[in-house]
Amino acid sequence: MMHRPLTLAEAQARLDSLARPPVAEAVPLAAAVGRVLAANLHAPGPLPPADRALVDGWALRADDTVGASAYSPLFAQALAVGAAVLPGTAAPLSAGDPLPPGADAVLPLHLVQEAGGMLELLGPVAPGQHVERAGQDCAAGSVLIPGGRRLRSMDTALAAAMGLDRLQATRQPRIRLVPIGRGGGVDLAGRLYPDLITRDGGVADPVADRAADPRQALTAPGADLILLVGGTSPGAPRGAVLLRELGRLDWHGLALDPGEAAGAGLVGDTPAILLPGGPAAGWSAYEMLAGRLIRRLAGLPPGLPHPVMPVPLAVKLVGEVGATRLVPVRLSPQGAVPLPPCPGLAQLVRADGFVLVPPHVEGWPAGTEVAVRLFDCFGTRDADH
Amino acid sequence: MMHRPLTLAEAQARLDSLARPPVAEAVPLAAAVGRVLAANLHAPGPLPPADRALVDGWALRADDTVGASAYSPLFAQALAVGAAVLPGTAAPLSAGDPLPPGADAVLPLHLVQEAGGMLELLGPVAPGQHVERAGQDCAAGSVLIPGGRRLRSMDTALAAAMGLDRLQATRQPRIRLVPIGRGGGVDLAGRLYPDLITRDGGVADPVADRAADPRQALTAPGADLILLVGGTSPGAPRGAVLLRELGRLDWHGLALDPGEAAGAGLVGDTPAILLPGGPAAGWSAYEMLAGRLIRRLAGLPPGLPHPVMPVPLAVKLVGEVGATRLVPVRLSPQGAVPLPPCPGLAQLVRADGFVLVPPHVEGWPAGTEVAVRLFDCFGTRDADH
Repeated sequence: MMHRPLTLAEAQARLDSLARPPVAEAVPLAAAVGRVLAANLHAPGPLPPADRALVDGWALRADDTVGASAYSPLFAQALAVGAAVLPGTAAPLSAGDPLPPGADAVLPLHLVQEAGGMLELLGPVAPGQHVERAGQDCAAGSVLIPGGRRLRSMDTALAAAMGLDRLQATRQPRIRLVPIGRGGGVDLAGRLYPDLITRDGGVADPVADRAADPRQALTAPGADLILLVGGTSPGAPRGAVLLRELGRLDWHGLALDPGEAAGAGLVGDTPAILLPGGPAAGWSAYEMLAGRLIRRLAGLPPGLPHPVMPVPLAVKLVGEVGATRLVPVRLSPQGAVPLPPCPGLAQLVRADGFVLVPPHVEGWPAGTEVAVRLFDCFGTRDADH
Repeated sequence: MMHRPLTLAEAQARLDSLARPPVAEAVPLAAAVGRVLAANLHAPGPLPPADRALVDGWALRADDTVGASAYSPLFAQALAVGAAVLPGTAAPLSAGDPLPPGADAVLPLHLVQEAGGMLELLGPVAPGQHVERAGQDCAAGSVLIPGGRRLRSMDTALAAAMGLDRLQATRQPRIRLVPIGRGGGVDLAGRLYPDLITRDGGVADPVADRAADPRQALTAPGADLILLVGGTSPGAPRGAVLLRELGRLDWHGLALDPGEAAGAGLVGDTPAILLPGGPAAGWSAYEMLAGRLIRRLAGLPPGLPHPVMPVPLAVKLVGEVGATRLVPVRLSPQGAVPLPPCPGLAQLVRADGFVLVPPHVEGWPAGTEVAVRLFDCFGTRDADH
């Protein structure tokens, strides 16, 4: 049944060919954070539209500050916000406020001492200092937010400031999780995978009922990708049997450790991936196959999304050649420590990330710098600030 | 009104002293991802509880495989899942399944060829090979998940596998956003800050109505931290006036660029921070003051949460001494490119992250390696896999 297992590169290439290009849809700003911007967003006009203050302070005429210092301050009359500035006067403003008429510079807060309606000017500014000229930030039509970006809250705030109420984002692929068979990994269908699917830009359908006949969940319309979780056991490969029955089994068996029992095919024209029921094997196959396809469908770069940190190995990493290996590692002051293989989640939970060992590599000696793919975004944080 | 501005370190020390230690609460697993584990979670028993398979394959007696190879396979009779293994037989199993009685090793899938009820064994295994011994993964009582960790979906899956239905997490601090005054940054109260508060382990109350009298939002009970957004303008510092009226203004004016108009105090015994109304200044003050306090209240490390990447400067970075500066940078193939100062969001949206310039540093020449704090978790991704 399982002859030569596919290499990971072969399996990825076959899945890549099944990915349809993402389509765009309008998304309200409140729901846009985390979505993928479908195309470059251009500035509708110059930014800023008019000269404005770069800092909090007092708008005035630079001439009025010539010679001012903390030891010999000059004086100006305090105006109200927005008032036109005449010689000998200054109007308060915040960074980003338009420069009031008559002013040509901004004196920052720390160079001004207020005393009633009079201001002590404690230093000089040159004409144009602390002022952002109209159009300086960006010209009309220039790219404000690059297409393909996972939108940040900052981006939606800028879009709101530009008067937009929605952005064009890629449609999120709908991923259907169908647990079949038995095994601890099948419980992951409800806990681990929905979170990873969100990370990869997809939306997980409610997990199909394990007790029900999986045929209905497999054939119901609306899914962009089906993940069959479990049912890959040798001797009782229910997932493979179901794919053959309802669609097509393209391949079964992969040179991936853990994750050898993975497979893939089609139900109708919907791609389907067999994730092994063992927790570590299922996770590994998700990361190397399913996540990649979901990112493609979502318009994200298909490569692994983990932040990569180069770290020397604290001890040697050994193993067998033949399969791509995902080896969980802990970070220690001495470097990355490979954790022993484990079919369950305990070592993955203890790990800070993992190392990919190519199929032709048996291992590496201690001290070799390896690329650790971190589980946590913020694992690279430093403690200085 | 504003005399010598506080240094950032002084302001942070004052806020640190206001942080109460976090308290723990039980959280259902389904709501636990992203929460902060309050204390170490220990294994209730040895893991695994019994010998189990490390890989998908066939459980058998290692003796039956001595001398097997692809060129001269040996044979065994295929049993059903879980059946007791006798000499000359093998039972299928998945990684993580308990070893059936009689078996002492697992032959991986790629070394087995199925043909009807008979198996061709294509290679040898040693006794114990591909088997995880009881207790090998971890001893009873050892730490499974370290306290203080931001829980991952993997952690909740492991907890579920251990029969737990909730975990002890720190209570999330409630952050009240009160927009006052005018300015583009005040719009950020609804868009940018709730997202950052979530990142930092807090929960944002619904943003107070800008049109209403802010006194009610400031004095209503239940907040662990109040953020007054805007109203820091020189000449019309409504935020400072409100703090003096309703509680205490501890300081106003900070050697932070942007963010000079920040301040802090108390309303009752609730800390309150004044975030400038300018978008970039408000963001900067949030990052350096508010985020830090929220992370402390949530039981997270207080330092900046951004992943840090050392990158050489592509061009020189110049400026003035005196204030800690947050300089947005873009990453280019030549290194980090500092972006010009901008009171609005356009440069921050264009940036990949920012560099902190200490107050005593005027700048750095091109080629200097600087610590870039990245906005995106996944900005360090590589394209190889």
